[in-house]
Amino acid sequence: MTNSNDCKEGNIRARIHPLLAYLQEVHAKYADSRDGALADYIPELSRADPNWFGISIATIDGQIYQVGDTAQDFTIQSVSKPFVYGMALQDNGLAYVNDRIGVEPSGDAFNSISLQKDSGRPFNPMINAGAIASTGLILGDNFEQKYSRLLQTFSDYVGRPVSIDESVYQSESETGDRNRAIGYMLRNVKKLDSAPEEVLDLYFRQCSILVNCRDLAVMAATLANGGVSPITGKTVIDEWCVTRVLSVMSTCGMYDYSGEWIFRVGMPSKSGVGGGIIGVLPGHLGIAVFSPLLDERGNSVRGIQVFSELSEHFDLHLFNVNRSTKSVIRSRYSADKVGSKRVRPESEMKLMSELGKRITIYELQGDLTLASIEIVIRDIMALPDTSEYLIIDFKRILGSDRPALDFFFKFFECNFDQIKDVICTHVIDHPELVAVIESFGLSSFFRVKTDTDDAIEFCEDLLLQNQIQPRTNYELTELPDFDLLRGLHSEEVNTLLRLLNKRYYEDGDAIIKQGQPAEAIYLLAVGQVSIYIDLPNGQKRRLTTCSPGMAFGEMAIIERSNRSASVIANGKVVCYQFPLEAYEKLTQTYPSIKFTILENIARRLSVRVRKLTDEVRTLSQ
Amino acid sequence: MTNSNDCKEGNIRARIHPLLAYLQEVHAKYADSRDGALADYIPELSRADPNWFGISIATIDGQIYQVGDTAQDFTIQSVSKPFVYGMALQDNGLAYVNDRIGVEPSGDAFNSISLQKDSGRPFNPMINAGAIASTGLILGDNFEQKYSRLLQTFSDYVGRPVSIDESVYQSESETGDRNRAIGYMLRNVKKLDSAPEEVLDLYFRQCSILVNCRDLAVMAATLANGGVSPITGKTVIDEWCVTRVLSVMSTCGMYDYSGEWIFRVGMPSKSGVGGGIIGVLPGHLGIAVFSPLLDERGNSVRGIQVFSELSEHFDLHLFNVNRSTKSVIRSRYSADKVGSKRVRPESEMKLMSELGKRITIYELQGDLTLASIEIVIRDIMALPDTSEYLIIDFKRILGSDRPALDFFFKFFECNFDQIKDVICTHVIDHPELVAVIESFGLSSFFRVKTDTDDAIEFCEDLLLQNQIQPRTNYELTELPDFDLLRGLHSEEVNTLLRLLNKRYYEDGDAIIKQGQPAEAIYLLAVGQVSIYIDLPNGQKRRLTTCSPGMAFGEMAIIERSNRSASVIANGKVVCYQFPLEAYEKLTQTYPSIKFTILENIARRLSVRVRKLTDEVRTLSQ
Repeated sequence: MTNSNDCKEGNIRARIHPLLAYLQEVHAKYADSRDGALADYIPELSRADPNWFGISIATIDGQIYQVGDTAQDFTIQSVSKPFVYGMALQDNGLAYVNDRIGVEPSGDAFNSISLQKDSGRPFNPMINAGAIASTGLILGDNFEQKYSRLLQTFSDYVGRPVSIDESVYQSESETGDRNRAIGYMLRNVKKLDSAPEEVLDLYFRQCSILVNCRDLAVMAATLANGGVSPITGKTVIDEWCVTRVLSVMSTCGMYDYSGEWIFRVGMPSKSGVGGGIIGVLPGHLGIAVFSPLLDERGNSVRGIQVFSELSEHFDLHLFNVNRSTKSVIRSRYSADKVGSKRVRPESEMKLMSELGKRITIYELQGDLTLASIEIVIRDIMALPDTSEYLIIDFKRILGSDRPALDFFFKFFECNFDQIKDVICTHVIDHPELVAVIESFGLSSFFRVKTDTDDAIEFCEDLLLQNQIQPRTNYELTELPDFDLLRGLHSEEVNTLLRLLNKRYYEDGDAIIKQGQPAEAIYLLAVGQVSIYIDLPNGQKRRLTTCSPGMAFGEMAIIERSNRSASVIANGKVVCYQFPLEAYEKLTQTYPSIKFTILENIARRLSVRVRKLTDEVRTLSQ
Repeated sequence: MTNSNDCKEGNIRARIHPLLAYLQEVHAKYADSRDGALADYIPELSRADPNWFGISIATIDGQIYQVGDTAQDFTIQSVSKPFVYGMALQDNGLAYVNDRIGVEPSGDAFNSISLQKDSGRPFNPMINAGAIASTGLILGDNFEQKYSRLLQTFSDYVGRPVSIDESVYQSESETGDRNRAIGYMLRNVKKLDSAPEEVLDLYFRQCSILVNCRDLAVMAATLANGGVSPITGKTVIDEWCVTRVLSVMSTCGMYDYSGEWIFRVGMPSKSGVGGGIIGVLPGHLGIAVFSPLLDERGNSVRGIQVFSELSEHFDLHLFNVNRSTKSVIRSRYSADKVGSKRVRPESEMKLMSELGKRITIYELQGDLTLASIEIVIRDIMALPDTSEYLIIDFKRILGSDRPALDFFFKFFECNFDQIKDVICTHVIDHPELVAVIESFGLSSFFRVKTDTDDAIEFCEDLLLQNQIQPRTNYELTELPDFDLLRGLHSEEVNTLLRLLNKRYYEDGDAIIKQGQPAEAIYLLAVGQVSIYIDLPNGQKRRLTTCSPGMAFGEMAIIERSNRSASVIANGKVVCYQFPLEAYEKLTQTYPSIKFTILENIARRLSVRVRKLTDEVRTLSQ
């Protein structure tokens, strides 16, 4: 273990994030280094301050840790190449771009004029020839449109409008004859559709875009996040293009140092003579270092030092194997273990403790890829034959591959002999998923529900329909049918009836209000009521729904507390209201009635404690 | 969408895994192809059957899907190179190996004799020169030892003893003069420590090792799984070596086709003239294809076709970004929301509903890397100042980077002003984690508990100690102190006392047995009891522990059911036994006593229903 990040009085007080503390140490370690030289092929670059030194790390959820001169503007130079190659791919498709630009590393210098012998293509988009060919592939009706799209794309990457350094652009243009030679050579072999002068002008502007170290880290993090900006949430580049951009960065990003770089540092990277280097750890981080002192290859000296140090210290290597695919199933349970939140009459609860086994709930998480879907499919195939209803909860899914999703849904179609119904929940946040579900089509087989509790309740209702006499909501429930009054003799029922008040409610009426004193127990005779709690944010959350034959409001009576929830009528409702005072008086007047009611309440609570304890155990597994 | 994997009658009946069904289609698609030619530089290879064709996929948890001639033996040839390079790294360390073998792609042929100009090293370990240098680095006192280690390593990779094809070895040895030239040249530039003839003999044997397609898939999956065999669970190669092996496979594995291969197929790969190709999708899969018909580069024609098809169909690309780091926190809650399973007296439960906020539980999952740890640290830093106890549950962790763990624990040390105690649970299955915890040292600050429920209970006890009069276990609890008897007048208590039997138990005595009829309620006066349920597998699970002042056995009385759990004395125990008969008689004799008891039972159950409902909601978030 190194001494870095030791506890320091200052850190504790300020509650500084330890990653920031670590970066401060690394920055201090190299701050005094003056190795390397400023780029001098144009005067503007040689005027940079050799002290400039910044380090920025951006996470894929948009946190930025940075130290040093991370707000200092400089020109992006060659760091623009992978991003413009990404534009070329997105604008023209894979085949067209592959026909014009290769993807093999070249042993030659970055400004080599040589082309691949067989195909006449530039070796790859990270050397100047390939980069100019990429710029030539930006779509637009005219120069202005192309230039505006270029600036817009970079603005989308960094999350603010970018502009170019005019004097650098002028100098690049004035001294850019070698690049012009490359342009004409490309035109000569038909790898450039537009006029070379126009493409070159765009290319010189592209290299002169002003960025800072933080911007570059955010750009790298956007690639690390599959093309979605972690700052703005906007998709800047499609995922299939990101895959290809990272591929060429990994094999060609550091010119003839690329093999060593991937081996040692292990991040697809790109450097520019402006002093910037970016590195992408896909699915993890984007990193940028800025220091304009360059080595003989044109890479920032401190940039390479810091990347090496960070990679080694934290094992930030691409091939550090991530095994998260294994945990794609967050939880799997059946509805006899964790049922819907709906409170049901005892008879239904008893049935569900058996029928619930036919409903299986899968909570998936992380990324859906072939490897993770394979695990889910294998698990589903191993379910007992009694599993008829599948609920797939996508709430915790972070990303998904379209082919893997297609594969998954195809699998369901092929298993319709066993599975009666597949219900997907929490799909709305996943456009990929919505598209796949639409392509398969909703039916009585494939369904979508907002949340998993809804879906479980829906399946429970389907199963119960076949088992019990359906009770319509508009039929008055007789008193002896109430769970709470089970075991009362008929004369006791008649006695009780005189103590109850029949109450009528319209849709939306509040029968009980949260926070009020408990004044009665309610027996629901007709209709449905929903129980809500008020959330601190002013919204309401539905806890459950009650059907005729059930009581509500008894818990506050038992606990002698105020109402802990509100009860609202769903449509027309009829209740027997049992005033607290009448209930209390039973102790003296008809103790046997009170004993029966109290024992029924206690029994029902005891059954619920047992069931909820099971649910907690299942959910914590 | 392609038509592949359409529902087929056969598939449904046999319940065939759709991945296998898909592989069968791909196999059928290319089965009749006769493109390419058999290797003919030695007669043994030219005698292969051109029909041979197998595809195997192995997952990182050891599932194998395969079709065709996957059990047919053939010689491993160049596919051995990355694995022997891995041995060289593990035997000699990174610096020593780097000094002898480069990692840059070379534009030259695989059997080129050229070396890197500056360093005199072979360009990389995937061409013959680098591979022979790797073989020369296998440690051992003599040839026999080295050869035996070589065979043992490959046996460990495939999960069964391997042997060599003697006649191929003889032929390779007889025709291997170019490789001998390479060997002597390496010796000449001091990149070979042993006698070239000995190294070459080992190299020819290495190339002649007999494997089949399934073996190669398992070897690839072992790399995909960070060096741990998914079949045997044995660590065949350390993770830091896997990282480097995959790096050179990605940049140099397919010779001068490597850039294109990573771009198109996106898997670190290696082929051999025996007809095998392996591909590794780190953290996901290992794939192998076997077909001895080769293209002019020496790669299996159908091998390349199948890899391209699989990669394209399923987006099996290395740079398909995995975002699982984002879901490292499976769940975060405080103990007022989900407390320990310990059933506590009402007074303690009431206290815990406030004090529980000081205990925060983190359930982590997936891989612990810098990026995922950063998220956890950020979350912990945002906790309110009242969070004093942290419980970190590592149960669902699949892998961890040592530097990330060091970073994590260092962070705790630096935050001791707020955090009083950090308790790690389920650490035992993670040797890396145990090592880090040991390096930091257990203390009253860092603790380890077997499971999270233990840890929560431990923290609750610490918090309660400071709040309530500690009640020793050996002091007789007076009847009015029992939750169940709250509200009884002193004369009622005296009446009740005559109905109770005082019972004494020794450690391990079963006070209640699961499945028996419920015959009494028990009031625990001295000592502790634990409640267990029998599991179907014959084991017992502890549900909870009760302390003096609490009742047990009342739920079966309320539900009029048999005992659903067993209750065992922890040490010496004294109970007041309240026989069912006596309890029932109270209805007639002393109804007021029974009302009080029944209301106390119902109130307590109601409170538990409320608390458990909260827990279920918290755990399902």
